Parts: sequence; structure tokens; C-alpha cells
Amino acid sequence: QINQDRLWDSLMEMAKIGATEKGGCARLALTDLDKQGRDLFVQWCKEAGCTITVDRMGNIFARRPGRNNDLPPVVTGSHLDTQPTGGKFDGVFGVLAGLEVIRTLNDYKFETEAPIEVSVWTNEEGSRFAPAMIASGVFGGVFTEEYGHSRADLDGKTIGEELKRIGYFGDAPVGGRPFKAFFEAHIEQGPILEAEDKIIGVVQGIQGIKWFEVTLTGQDCHAGTTPMNRRKDAMLAAARMVDLVNKIALDHLPGVGTVGLMTVHPNSRNVIPGKVFFTVDLRHPYDEELEKMKAALDAGAAKICGNLDVEYDLQEIWNSPAIHYDPACIDAVRKAADEAGLPNRDIVSGAGHDAGYIARVAPVGMIFVPCAEGISHNEIESALPEDLAAGCNVLMRAMVELAA
Amino acid sequence: QINQDRLWDSLMEMAKIGATEKGGCARLALTDLDKQGRDLFVQWCKEAGCTITVDRMGNIFARRPGRNNDLPPVVTGSHLDTQPTGGKFDGVFGVLAGLEVIRTLNDYKFETEAPIEVSVWTNEEGSRFAPAMIASGVFGGVFTEEYGHSRADLDGKTIGEELKRIGYFGDAPVGGRPFKAFFEAHIEQGPILEAEDKIIGVVQGIQGIKWFEVTLTGQDCHAGTTPMNRRKDAMLAAARMVDLVNKIALDHLPGVGTVGLMTVHPNSRNVIPGKVFFTVDLRHPYDEELEKMKAALDAGAAKICGNLDVEYDLQEIWNSPAIHYDPACIDAVRKAADEAGLPNRDIVSGAGHDAGYIARVAPVGMIFVPCAEGISHNEIESALPEDLAAGCNVLMRAMVELAA
Ligand SMILES: NC(=O)NCCC(=O)O
Ligand SMILES: NC(=O)NCCC(=O)O
Repeated sequence: QINQDRLWDSLMEMAKIGATEKGGCARLALTDLDKQGRDLFVQWCKEAGCTITVDRMGNIFARRPGRNNDLPPVVTGSHLDTQPTGGKFDGVFGVLAGLEVIRTLNDYKFETEAPIEVSVWTNEEGSRFAPAMIASGVFGGVFTEEYGHSRADLDGKTIGEELKRIGYFGDAPVGGRPFKAFFEAHIEQGPILEAEDKIIGVVQGIQGIKWFEVTLTGQDCHAGTTPMNRRKDAMLAAARMVDLVNKIALDHLPGVGTVGLMTVHPNSRNVIPGKVFFTVDLRHPYDEELEKMKAALDAGAAKICGNLDVEYDLQEIWNSPAIHYDPACIDAVRKAADEAGLPNRDIVSGAGHDAGYIARVAPVGMIFVPCAEGISHNEIESALPEDLAAGCNVLMRAMVELAA
Repeated sequence: QINQDRLWDSLMEMAKIGATEKGGCARLALTDLDKQGRDLFVQWCKEAGCTITVDRMGNIFARRPGRNNDLPPVVTGSHLDTQPTGGKFDGVFGVLAGLEVIRTLNDYKFETEAPIEVSVWTNEEGSRFAPAMIASGVFGGVFTEEYGHSRADLDGKTIGEELKRIGYFGDAPVGGRPFKAFFEAHIEQGPILEAEDKIIGVVQGIQGIKWFEVTLTGQDCHAGTTPMNRRKDAMLAAARMVDLVNKIALDHLPGVGTVGLMTVHPNSRNVIPGKVFFTVDLRHPYDEELEKMKAALDAGAAKICGNLDVEYDLQEIWNSPAIHYDPACIDAVRKAADEAGLPNRDIVSGAGHDAGYIARVAPVGMIFVPCAEGISHNEIESALPEDLAAGCNVLMRAMVELAA
């Protein structure tokens, strides 16, 4: 049994770094605050007797030796970065649950055959740098290291530069590090477990995700003097595309569609906007349906922009097809939950996770625990100490089984 | 006859201050660049023998004495501030045309009975500080001085602070300065004169303008895990309101409606936006119609936000009813254009102008000249040297007639 209070205290301690007024966290990837969070994690791992490796994407691996250190490790982990108005649990729980597993094994002087590792993956959220899960993506061979280093935030600062700046551009190559298995514990971030009174979600995989960047170009013009029929209004075209994204999702349920980011140029009250940039996030559990959603976006954009005499540039900047986890790892999670007497159900993740890209190079399983009202990517995100402890116990059992 | 080349050269010299790559100007109100533009104007006026007065709203008055300096002056002027992606002529033409009138009268050693003044009005554009024409509005008794000083930009800096910072918080009281008449020369900023091959627009007045600020509050939530039917998507509600504003304008032609400014929170690709702030600009030549447009906005907002479970706050922050200029001043402009043999027509301004607020306290007339394709509030705004010179000649004739 892991130590529920210790896990909770560590979560609350980490949450102080970037704490927001409304009780959330703003610790964006590769900021000074992210560095503080990483430093604290590394310190805790060293205190727990681990050795630390950092790779060239800033991914951190904290290793607890096994009896046979020639065996590939059983690894867990998640991310420490958050959304601008993020919560205290998304990602952080998976990292600190891993640490709690190691601390508990230490308490019991429990030896595993294979080593155990806890990992932290860089820029999982994709908020500061798009796309999400970049560093686990490089690790999984989905992106090149050059691509990973070159991705820039809205101010033009790149991941490579920022990794160097905060001292987390490590020496180790990215990937090529065999894992016996990888498990990630995470809050569900959706409403299903809570609604069904389950404590553990046995994650089957992740739905397909596509991200788009859209730039609409009309013409800046005077809001008072330009007749309605002479306008090339990029804002109006953007607005209709936001509504289109919503309609596409409703036409392809349980798919979802979101416009989360928009910048308007010149952004002046009495100027018809000549340029609008925005992003589109489309998801569906089935890849064929996701392709249909994309086709509807293409067709709708052409129609809307054609009608309004606005030029558009629509780029698919990220495609992450549906992911299916490893049957043996899934079984290990279900078995651990059943043995612990925890009500559980199979579930497909609506959110992307580092585990999804690691599944390209290792057997993967994931453990979900409920969060209040399914709310995440919000400062009020919350989860119960006992549910988090339950998820951590399941994680420990599954890891020990695989590392035994 | 005024000196066309000298007028053009002064316009091009002023345009260097805040020049943009695409040939426009970004000289926002009360920035360091605005100070540079003001300093240059003041220097030129002093070189032309004028005395300078600055009032507590930063409005500048450059006076050329008449034979009888007890008479109220005949005044012209406009503004030197621009939009973020503004042109070289909007406002600046009216200021430098006034200076050119004084320079020409000096050339001919022409004396007027009443003094002549050229004025520069603070923050006409309303881009940095809302609403537009604040300082002429205080002068015209529409706003209090406290209101004028307290208006803040998006960073929270106020007009009062910024006036002090750039050294243009003058001593003179705002208003209470009698004008025999006020004329403003301006580019049309719309397509009518060009389309009809007219060189002079005899401005009858300004259409009614209302500005609104809208804040929509939904709930930040995860874009991947939140089912469509559990969302409170402030972005979607904003998008539908942008489309509503467009529809309202089309239902009330020749009214216009524009959403020019929008900020999204937290503005992250995979977060359903929990808060969106945007502005609405509605205009119509008839006040009753403008009221109907406002009513349609209110009703539409309630419906859209109700449907989407998003809260809204909709504030009318500015109401400028339709303005009608002084018949004698209008006649003086028409007569001057006719006498100079310039094709002209009566026209109603789609844009707001300082002259509109000065019309509350003095007889006012305005002179429009064409601009290419009616494009303004755009870096490519352009006007012909000969049209600008024609407008300046009409201005001089009208002023001299009133000041004779
Ligand atoms: N787990 C999580 O919130 N990941 C962020 C990537 C995404 O799903 O948008
Ligand atoms: N002339 C002009 O562009 N004024 C700005 C105020 C407005 O009409 O929006």
C-alpha cells in the first residue's frame, strides 16, 4: 500500500510552483517555473536513491535499480508542464505517483528483478509549443529531434533554445532506450468514471487527434465607411469557421471539435480585421470518422471563405491516429484493480498522453482516476486523495507484476 | 493657391514617424511616436509664426493672429494619431492642410480680420483608448475631463498618465474657447467620391455610432475529453455573435456592423475558451435605425448565450448620435468648391471626426477628398497630391471667407 498522505503532500508542494489565484497552476513548458518543478522532482528522486538521466529533448528518467540491471526497466511517468489556466493534477499526478511507487518500494525495501524508472516528458500540453506530446513523440520515433528542437512558441522562442536556457538540454539520445513496459497514471479529465461511480479506468487507448492552423486574409478597412458589400472581413470568416467546427463535431459524435486559440489583426475596434489566425482541434475514436471531419473542414472553409472573398490557408499540423494499448499491460492494470477491489471499467482516452507515443516503442498501459465533474484544463480541476491513492496502488501492483 | 508640393512634402515627412514596412503609419495616441509627431507639428507652426496653446487633454492650438484679435478665431484641424496599421493621410491631412493654409497666407502676407488657428485633437482614432474622439468630446462638453483622463488602454495605462509622460498635459482648460467656425479637411475613407469622379465631398454630418464591449463567460475545459453537450464554449458564443452583428447590419442597410477586436482566454489550442472579450461597432445614418440595431444585438446575444449556457455582459460604452453640420459652413464649403471649379457632391460621413463633437459648441463644416478604392485604416491608404491640394484650397477659401 502506498502512502496516501505523502502522495498528496507532494502534489500540493509541486502545485505551489506556478500556483494561480483560483487554486490552479500555470507552469508552461520550459519556463522558469517548469525548471523549478523539474528541479524539485529531481531532488526528490535523488533523495529516494535514484540516478537521473536527461535526454536531448529534456525528458528526465529517474532510475531505481533492480536485482538484474541488464533487464530493461519497467517505466512510469507523465509530465510536469501545465496549461496557462491548468490544474494541480493533470500530468503531475502521473509523475508523483511514480515517485510514490519508488518511495513505497524503498519503505518496504522491496526489490524488483528489473529496474523501475519514473519519467518526465517535455511539453506534453502543447499549449506553449504545438503539437502536444512533442518530446515523447521524438522518443517514439514519430517526430525527428530537429523538428522537436525547432518548434517555436508564439514569440518565436524554440524548444531547443529554451531547453538550453533552463539547463535541461541533456546528453542522452532521445529514444533507443528499451522499456519492458510503460504505465501512465492520470486523471481521466472527462466525466465518465465519476458518472458511473468507478474509481479506476482501464485505458484501452487514445482517440485520434488532428490539429490545424488556419490563417484568414481579408483586408483591413474602416469599420464606419466600408459598405457591407465591399468588405473582406477575416473576423466574420473566422466566426463562421468556429461555428462550422462545432457543427462538424455534432455531425460526427462522439467526435469533438474546438477552436481554442485565436489572434486578430490589427485588433482595433474600428478596423475590419484583415487577418485572423486560429487553431482547430478535431478528435474521434475512429480514424475513418476523423478523416471525414477533416474533409468537412476543408470543404466548409472553401465555401465560407469563397463567399466572403477572404483567402485562407489551412494546414494540418498534427495528426495522431487512434492508439491501442498493449493487451498484456491492459490486463495487468485490470487485474491490479480487481485484486485491490476497486470498481473499474474499460475506457478510451479523449486526451492525448505521452503513453500514446511511447506505445510505438514499448508495451503500454494506462490507469485513469476520476476528477470532479470531469473538468480539466481549468484551475478548478480537482481529484480526491483516496482516488489518487487508489490509482497509485494500481500503478504499483502493475509495475511490480511486470518487473517482478 | 496653396503649395501642393509643400503640403505633400510635409505629409511625407510626418509619415516617417511611425512608418511601417507596408508604407503605412503606426503612431498610436500618446505613444513616444505620437509625441514626436506633435513636436514636429509644433516646431513647424512656430516657424510659421504661430503661438501655441496646449489644453489639459493635450489638444494643441496654433494661432496666426488676425487684424482683430478680440474676434473668435476660425479654426481648422484634425488628429495626428493613427491606427496600429493606419495610413499616412487619415487625420494628418487635416492637420497639415491647416498648416499649409497658414503658410500660404504668410507667403501672400494675407491678413484676415479674425485670427486663424490649426488644432490637433488627442486620441481621435479610439484604437488605443476607447472611445474615439475623446479629447474633442471633452472640448465639446460630451465627456467630462475626469472621464477623458481616466480612459485606459488594454494595459491599464490612462490618458492622463500618458499625457503627462509625453509632456502634453497642458495648462489651458478644455473647451470654453469660442470658435467663429471650425472646418476639418479629411480623406473620405470610403468609396463614393472616387466612384463618382468627384474631387470634393461637401460633408453634411456624421452617421450615428455605438460601441459595445462584450464579455462572454463559459468554462475553460479540455478540448479532447469534454463531450459536445457538456461544453460552455465562450468562443462558440462569440463566433455566433460576430455573425449576428453582420446579419444585423445587412438587415439595416446602409447601416454597418463590425467586430474589430477580440481577445480569447486562456487562448490555448486544447482548451475550450472560458472567456472571450470583444467589441462591436454599429453605425447608421438614422438614430432610430441605430436603436433598432442595438435592440437586435441585445436580443440576439440573449438567445445565443442562452442556447450555449454562456453568461454575457454587454455594455454600450459609446453612443454618438447622428450629427448635422452648420448650414452656413456647409454652404461656404460648397461655394469654395464651385468657385474653384472642383466637381463636388454632398456626402454623409461614415467615420467619426473631431468636427462632430466640436459641432456641439461651434458652427462646423467638413471637406472630403477621395482616397484610393475608399480604403482607410489600412497601411495601403492612399490619396493623390492634386486631390489633397484641391481639398486644401477649398479649406483655405472657406476659412478666409469666414475670417475675412
Ligand atoms: N492529457 C492532456 O491534457 N494532454 C494534452 C494534449 C491533449 O490531449 O490535448
Ligand atoms: N476618421 C476616423 O477614422 N475616425 C475614427 C473614428 C471612427 O470613425 O471609428
